Amino acid sequence: MEDKLQALKTRLAEIQDLRKAAALLNWDQQTYMPPGGAAARAEQLATLAKTAHTWFVADEIGVLLEDLKGQAAGWDFDSDEASLVRVVARDYQKARKIPPELVAEFARVTTLAFEAWAKARKESDFAQFQPHLQKIVELNIRFAEAWGYQERMYDPLLDEFEPDMKTAQVAAIFDDLKPALLPLVKAISERADRVDASVLCRPADVDKQWAFGVEVIKQIGFDFNRGRQDRSLHPFTTSFSISDVRLTTRLDPNYLPSALYGSLHECGHGLYEQGIDPRLERTALDDGASLGVHESQSRLWENLVGRGRPFLKYAFPRLRAAFPQQLDGVDEEAFYRAINRVEPSLIRVEADEVTYNLHIMLRFELENEMLEGKIKLADLPEAWNARMRGYLGIAPPNDAAGVLQDVHWSNGMFGYFPTYSLGNLLSVQFFDKARQDIPDVLDQIAAGRFEDLLGWLRQNIHRHGRKYTPAQLVRRVTGQELTAAHYVAYIRAKFSEIYGL
Amino acid sequence: MEDKLQALKTRLAEIQDLRKAAALLNWDQQTYMPPGGAAARAEQLATLAKTAHTWFVADEIGVLLEDLKGQAAGWDFDSDEASLVRVVARDYQKARKIPPELVAEFARVTTLAFEAWAKARKESDFAQFQPHLQKIVELNIRFAEAWGYQERMYDPLLDEFEPDMKTAQVAAIFDDLKPALLPLVKAISERADRVDASVLCRPADVDKQWAFGVEVIKQIGFDFNRGRQDRSLHPFTTSFSISDVRLTTRLDPNYLPSALYGSLHECGHGLYEQGIDPRLERTALDDGASLGVHESQSRLWENLVGRGRPFLKYAFPRLRAAFPQQLDGVDEEAFYRAINRVEPSLIRVEADEVTYNLHIMLRFELENEMLEGKIKLADLPEAWNARMRGYLGIAPPNDAAGVLQDVHWSNGMFGYFPTYSLGNLLSVQFFDKARQDIPDVLDQIAAGRFEDLLGWLRQNIHRHGRKYTPAQLVRRVTGQELTAAHYVAYIRAKFSEIYGL
Repeated sequence: MEDKLQALKTRLAEIQDLRKAAALLNWDQQTYMPPGGAAARAEQLATLAKTAHTWFVADEIGVLLEDLKGQAAGWDFDSDEASLVRVVARDYQKARKIPPELVAEFARVTTLAFEAWAKARKESDFAQFQPHLQKIVELNIRFAEAWGYQERMYDPLLDEFEPDMKTAQVAAIFDDLKPALLPLVKAISERADRVDASVLCRPADVDKQWAFGVEVIKQIGFDFNRGRQDRSLHPFTTSFSISDVRLTTRLDPNYLPSALYGSLHECGHGLYEQGIDPRLERTALDDGASLGVHESQSRLWENLVGRGRPFLKYAFPRLRAAFPQQLDGVDEEAFYRAINRVEPSLIRVEADEVTYNLHIMLRFELENEMLEGKIKLADLPEAWNARMRGYLGIAPPNDAAGVLQDVHWSNGMFGYFPTYSLGNLLSVQFFDKARQDIPDVLDQIAAGRFEDLLGWLRQNIHRHGRKYTPAQLVRRVTGQELTAAHYVAYIRAKFSEIYGL
Repeated sequence: MEDKLQALKTRLAEIQDLRKAAALLNWDQQTYMPPGGAAARAEQLATLAKTAHTWFVADEIGVLLEDLKGQAAGWDFDSDEASLVRVVARDYQKARKIPPELVAEFARVTTLAFEAWAKARKESDFAQFQPHLQKIVELNIRFAEAWGYQERMYDPLLDEFEPDMKTAQVAAIFDDLKPALLPLVKAISERADRVDASVLCRPADVDKQWAFGVEVIKQIGFDFNRGRQDRSLHPFTTSFSISDVRLTTRLDPNYLPSALYGSLHECGHGLYEQGIDPRLERTALDDGASLGVHESQSRLWENLVGRGRPFLKYAFPRLRAAFPQQLDGVDEEAFYRAINRVEPSLIRVEADEVTYNLHIMLRFELENEMLEGKIKLADLPEAWNARMRGYLGIAPPNDAAGVLQDVHWSNGMFGYFPTYSLGNLLSVQFFDKARQDIPDVLDQIAAGRFEDLLGWLRQNIHRHGRKYTPAQLVRRVTGQELTAAHYVAYIRAKFSEIYGL
């Protein structure tokens, strides 16, 4: 049996090599690749994706898995070996339904769509992107049909990013959130003048912003010997191994916190990747449990830590020393209130903690409608704007600030957006548990000491990689199911205090 | 037959995709990869190399080639199709002799050796690198034995970089060069005080140096929409497609011309890659004819153009405007003499045009001795130093300035160095022909107009990619065989004038 396990591992290792090579080609496309490189890059990514897929769906992997599944029943559920067989068998069962040519086609179409999206966004012209989006919707439908589904076409797509999660569960969570969030947004709107964030828009040198962000994430524990940070149009984190984790961020000279909070967010993702048990390297388990769990890590550092008063006790004096002009006459409390200002706004990645999930609901609904043919793509910009008015009371002046703002659709990813909301919910649920387990964690954070919190995350979440489904992991870590309750309580308490509700 | 050609092209295209992906992984390793990334990168590169090799040596490619070879005899020798069959059949015949596992092993060993070399060089400690070099020598011997050879073990290795060139031919060329160069070096040494280059060492901001280099290579014709420039420890050029060509350079704050001449050199390589006929994209012909021909392009722009008086008529006033302090009181003629100063020195890449080839002879001799077991690796640093004293009359104070200075051995490349000398010779031979064909080319250069020269290179050399062997190409372009005569005449005339010999 050991031989069969080793045979499976050897094959998975080489498949991971191709997937990680593809990840580097993607990273390069979004950071350094010149415009001329796109066409050849599309073919290269198509070949890598097709090959990795072909290797993975090979009959012999199925035979190995079948043989190992019988044995694995007797192994410790938590062992690397049992987890490997369990998780890979699930991946295999899904992957077998997809022909390699469809995988190649998807890689080719999305690589070119990314370039088209970047240009369309720059020129704020949805029409340029529409034919690419059309192909991407069609491809997603082909994937969903190939995988099959019981209730909603969205289910198998969502499942790629959030294993075992169903569309109906997401809808139910949003139904829980809406009655909590909409009145809160309204109440805060009526007291908008209670918080002044104009100080954040004083021009600040981007190189200094970058340096400050890097200093903070080093302090938190991001290991620059095993990772780095670059600039990109759309911030993201990727990894080519547990010891080569790449953050990207973007900089805004007219928004002082852009680099700091961008770096904190991506650092949260990066710490997760760097914290995976090295024994899982080059298996299919060397990744996060799901995008929702991944996002819980970025949001935990960005919001639960970064936008909290204890963190500012540590960071604000340093920030003021780095930006004496910009923060002249600003105290810690004013800064705390400024970075927690709630305001309906156009851009998801800049949204505050209260309105953020409304941006996701809009995308979740539109994605379902596109897949189910309930909306014509030509009408998408207006449908976007209408829903923005409905949820947030504002509408984008142009496509760049509206329907074209996010990279995800150009990357072919339908079913991804809800994981942001799941991440928001989980970040609070996990942080509440960490506070129980480490009673003085807030004092530690105020003193600039993050190692206990990071250690807790490593122990409870990071090291496991993909061994558990999100539901299994959440139960394991918190003893509960995923719930909106922690998030709603946190949001209500924090913002009622800030806005005097 | 058309179907078989298409079948071959389809297979070659996917093989090129993997090779180009590997090139990106290599580029990233040398530009941005954090230290922790090396181990996984080694595995990824091993998998890519093994897979590309396995695909290429597949029986069905052999069958396709055999079928096509019969037909190709009736095709125009210069056609893309006949060239493809001719060149790929030659590649195939060599590649079939190498087991895929050896290719994987080579990729794995060299990826780790590169990291070890970088560290050893930094710490100037050959002993750290020696075990890696040992493995690399052994691997090269295994490759040479697998390929087989008639005269020298070096032959099949050299052939990888310079198709059809033999060790004996290289030795004969060096025998032609030595009696011309050694007396010249000696005569110049006696008049060393005739040229003062100290002005070049006035500290100069590296960002400004970078910007000036970029401005010049843009003017020459490097297309930044289809390429870019980054920093690396050892300057190099690579490409991931004809429209994605990456230069790297290094910067020295205490050597004003470092960025300009480094960029000119790599730009020469980059123009070659960008100039390949797009119809050859994703075939095996989308590369230079050989490393010698490649180097002829870099040296032509760096030396024949860049270190000539006509170019300085264009560039020097601009350089003085960019560096008014550093070039205060320096005129064009003084600068011309300074950048053409001849002085025996330790570092190959900084060597002048006269002494450069002596650095190569030393490496060529040591490589042969290592392969043929005539030298123990532990003795290599001292053998290096002894030969430096013999050829150049100086010896390095440490390993970093001696045996560890070059990246090539860490990359596993034995048989590469002679191509630098071949490139030097060819650069003059080609430039002499270009001057015949474009009578006013020097006036054009003096006016900052490079399009006729670039057009000539594109038409005669670049567009053909790998269609011709170096010998075929040289004959086609110049009507002659490769000869040292042009180079020797050029060197004698130029430096006799500068040094008043």
